[in-house]
Order: sequence, then structure tokens, then C-alpha cells
Amino acid sequence: MSDTAAEIASQLAWIAVDWGSSNLRAWGLDKHDHVIAQAGSDKGMLSLTPDQYEAELLHLIGEWLPGSGQIEVIVCGMAGARQGWQEAAYLPVPTRLDQLTQGAVLPTLAGAQLRVYLLPGLSQTCSASSHSDVMRGEETQLAGLVAETPAFSGLACLPGTHAKWATLESGAVTQFTTYLTGELYQLLAHQSVLQHSVGSDDLNDPACHDAFISAVSEINDAPETFSSRLFGLRAQDLLDGRLPSGKARAAVLSARLSGLTIGLELAGTCHDRPNGEPITLIGNKELCHRYTLALNTIGFQTQHLEGDVAVLAGLRLAHKALKA
Amino acid sequence: MSDTAAEIASQLAWIAVDWGSSNLRAWGLDKHDHVIAQAGSDKGMLSLTPDQYEAELLHLIGEWLPGSGQIEVIVCGMAGARQGWQEAAYLPVPTRLDQLTQGAVLPTLAGAQLRVYLLPGLSQTCSASSHSDVMRGEETQLAGLVAETPAFSGLACLPGTHAKWATLESGAVTQFTTYLTGELYQLLAHQSVLQHSVGSDDLNDPACHDAFISAVSEINDAPETFSSRLFGLRAQDLLDGRLPSGKARAAVLSARLSGLTIGLELAGTCHDRPNGEPITLIGNKELCHRYTLALNTIGFQTQHLEGDVAVLAGLRLAHKALKA
Repeated sequence: MSDTAAEIASQLAWIAVDWGSSNLRAWGLDKHDHVIAQAGSDKGMLSLTPDQYEAELLHLIGEWLPGSGQIEVIVCGMAGARQGWQEAAYLPVPTRLDQLTQGAVLPTLAGAQLRVYLLPGLSQTCSASSHSDVMRGEETQLAGLVAETPAFSGLACLPGTHAKWATLESGAVTQFTTYLTGELYQLLAHQSVLQHSVGSDDLNDPACHDAFISAVSEINDAPETFSSRLFGLRAQDLLDGRLPSGKARAAVLSARLSGLTIGLELAGTCHDRPNGEPITLIGNKELCHRYTLALNTIGFQTQHLEGDVAVLAGLRLAHKALKA
Repeated sequence: MSDTAAEIASQLAWIAVDWGSSNLRAWGLDKHDHVIAQAGSDKGMLSLTPDQYEAELLHLIGEWLPGSGQIEVIVCGMAGARQGWQEAAYLPVPTRLDQLTQGAVLPTLAGAQLRVYLLPGLSQTCSASSHSDVMRGEETQLAGLVAETPAFSGLACLPGTHAKWATLESGAVTQFTTYLTGELYQLLAHQSVLQHSVGSDDLNDPACHDAFISAVSEINDAPETFSSRLFGLRAQDLLDGRLPSGKARAAVLSARLSGLTIGLELAGTCHDRPNGEPITLIGNKELCHRYTLALNTIGFQTQHLEGDVAVLAGLRLAHKALKA
């Protein structure tokens, strides 16, 4: 054991883990909830069978552990899915985000060094006012909001492959909706006829910026034109002499495709919504900046919480709830 | 040469060809425009370089040719694209469908047995009332409508990977719009997270039928919910105890996905349109039946023209125009 590892082991109070579909990240925390160690791997839920989780976790954080005693590990994300380590059944909304541990499950472990809590996701069943929906992992990022402001009320958006929009009231999720935005963009950009027309955009470039916000605005005004505007990108590439050529052309068309997919999401979620309180965006800076541009275009203000900060704050809140 | 081939050669007046991206079909016609021979192959535009078209055509129809004289060949479809045999530049709308041959090009051939006309596609440039769009091949199917009714006016739809909707006025296409419907369905059904939830549907099954028409109706009423209803299919699969299980469950969810993608197309094209004249569907029977169900759901009537019949009628019209 290295000196550093010995120092970590002497101070370690508990471990926080965000275990997603394609990777996991672990943080070692001291008794003041300060991060004293970090580790990660690409052994996400999709590459593990249930009997491999404990070994993978020990492989990653084994060096942090003290010689004796049991360390609590709070895990959020896909490790708690049916096809993960062990299922932590969805909690139905409304759910208070400081009470996620009430749905936690403790998988049986081979060793006695760890006590693992798998946090549940949230579910919403179909009713007059809402559709069937699920989230797993994002609830812990939302709990990060509540860790900062216990009675948080407002609208939060977590952009991504499956973007989530959640309504919070006094620290509870009351309703949420998932949009396939990121996945739609990836499929269209890389696997459809549009792959011949689009490349990578850069919203700092004025032509990309303008193409992006025009597309957001057009789809927000007329969401029924989404599917024809997609093919329109291909036609524009074939016909439009005003577009730049080469990579600059592909960049502008990418920005437009991004604007169409994000714009469709915003049309869905912001339709008929008064633009008063700012919308809280949780995620990485670059993607949240893109959403801010889009939301500003249709008259909404935003504030930003970094995704890593949010998930760690949510895991801390869950750990505190265990002690209460 | 077989007896049959000799008989064909003695009667052959001209040849009609529909040369698409992934296959081609050729018909031999006599002086009364009756089909006396048919052939086809999977050598579509995507598998040929420009110098291979003549040989492929001769390979397919060489046996039909008389010993002397030159035979006219009218070709529609992707063979006339920039990346095909030789480019037949798009004709801008409005274009009269009995005048497509005005944009035909004659590729230089190695032999003297054939005289080949590649028909052009149609293009539409961006303006206040329409978007950039292109078609290549479908214009000849639309010409099939005009072959039957020279002054045809009305709305025609050609369902498919890239579904086309065209407005015809007195035998001319005045405006058209392409929807990415078929491609969107394929990407979502086979390459997105929904691949775990959907299978094959059967609209003769009452549960599939109902799921399909509900989805059409929901998206027609609220097209802005398209992206969230896509993820909703996955959530429904995970949560909805009322759905059947196994293949029947996957079938119902497929029917719903089909209804969502077709419904988005119809929301785009039928928005604000009075439902008076029937819409002419051109294509295969099964797909046109699906569109009829969807269109009936939102209050429109349809009539059907088989795709093969339409393209051959359009090629006949083009051949007649050459003689005029």
C-alpha cells in the first residue's frame, strides 16, 4: 500500500458511486464529506453480469479501504436497474428527493468490507396529465439541487442522449418527461441519408450559431414540420448555393440538425409554459450552453449546475439521509 | 437465342427502365405500348460506377434486341443522379409532368444498339412558401397520374423511406415536400433504445390497429410531443401491465411507433388543409393501406394507384412525348 493509499484509508468515511450504462465513477469521502480520492472505469452496466459488480468495485476502490470496519457505498444509476447488479425498483412520483434511500436495496456481498446501497430510479405511470416515463441516475442529480436548496421548486432539464425535464415542488419531483433528443441527433447525423451532409458544428462560429437558432425557432413555431425539415437539410446541401462549401457547409448543416432536434424538445416542453422563473440546466458546460442559446431564443432564461457537482451533492444527501 | 427471345426481338418497340438506388427493373414494350418482356437486377445506382451502366443494361435486356436498328430506352430514377450514370439536372417546379423529356440527357454509349434517355428529377428552391427539396424517380410515378388524367389536379402522396407529397395543378407539379418517415421508423425500430421494445406489427390485429390509429391521432393533435412519445414507448414497455407480453407486446409497440412517425408526416402535410378531395396514394398496396387508415383517422379520404403501374404509365408518357 502506498503512502497516499494509507492516508486515504485512514480518513475514508464512505464512498459515492455513479454507475452508468457505459462507465462508473467513484469518489472516496472523509467524515466532512470532502472528496479525498477519485477513480473510474469503463465497466458500465452493459459490460457486467450481476456477479461481477462487487469485484469490479473492489478492483477500483480496494486500495482506499481501511484494514478493518465496514465502509458504506452509495450507488446511483444503472447498477440498480433490472439488468444491473440488483434491481432497486422505481419509486413512483411524486417523490421527495431527500428520501431516495427509502427505495435503496442492499445486494448480498461475498466480503464484509463494504455495505452497498443501490439507489432507485423514478417512474411515472400514464394518467390524464402525464405519460409513462422512467429515469435512473438523473434523480440523484436532481437531488443535488435539493441538497443546495431543500425546498427547491422549479423546472430542471438534464440534456443528453435521453434528455429529462422534471418539475420540482418543495423538494419533490412531481412530474417528468424524457425526450429522445441526443439519440435522434446521433442516429440522424451518423446513420441516415443526412450523414452525407452533416459534420461537426461550432456554435462560436457565427454561421453555425445563426443556423442553430433559426432551426430552434422554426421548429418551435411549427413542430409538425420536423420530419420534412430533416430531409430539407439534404436538399439544401444539394441545392443551396449560398451555403459555404466543404467542412464549413457540413458544420452549418450540423448546427441546423442540432437546432431541429433540440427545438422539437423545447416545443414539447415549453409549449404553453409562461417564461417566468429561470430553467435549471444540469449537465456538462458545453451542452448546457447549447441549451441556453436555444432557450434564450424562445424567451426563457437559464441557470447552470455542473453534472458532476450535482450527482455528488445528490449522493451526499442520500448518505446523510441514511444517518438520520 | 431462344424462340421466346426471337419473338420478343421481332416485336420490341422500346424499353422502359426504373433504375433506383438499390435495384433496377426493365420492361420491353411493343408498338402498342404493351409489355412483352420484363427483367430486373439488384445492380442499383449504389453498386455501379458510371462506366458500368451500359454493360449492366445490355446484360439484362440484350436478348430482347433485334439484329439491327436502334432501340430507345427511357430511364427514370437514380441512374440520372450526379453520382449515377450521368446527371440529368433537376427541373425546377412548376413542371408539367408530360414534359419531363425536355430535361432528359443522352449518355454517350460504346455500342449503337441503344439510344438511352435519362429522365430528370424535380427540384424546389427555398422561398417564402416552400423549402428546398428534391425528388428523382417519384416524378415519373406522378407522371403516371397525368398519363391517365392529363389535366390532373390534386394532392398525391408516395409513401416510403423518403415519403413525397406533391401538389398537382392541371398536370404540373407546383409544390412538393419530402418527409423522412420511413427512414426515421427504421432507425428508431432497429438502431435506437426502442429496438428492445418493438418488433413487427400487423394492422389486421385489433390491438395493433388501435395502437396505430391512437398514435396517429395523438401526434396529429400535438406534434410537439413526438420526441417524448418515442421514449414513452420504452417506458410503456417497462411499466405498462395492461399490454400483452412477448411478441404481441412488441407488435403493439411497433404499431404505435409506426403511427407516431406517419402521424408526424400527416400533421406536417395536412395541417390547416381542408379535407375535401381524396388524396391519391401511389405505392405498394400494404403501405398505402396503412396510410389510408392514418388519413381516415384524421378525416381524409384516399384513392390508390399501384406504384408499378404508375411508373410504367409515366415512362410510356415520356416515350410518347419523345415522338411528339
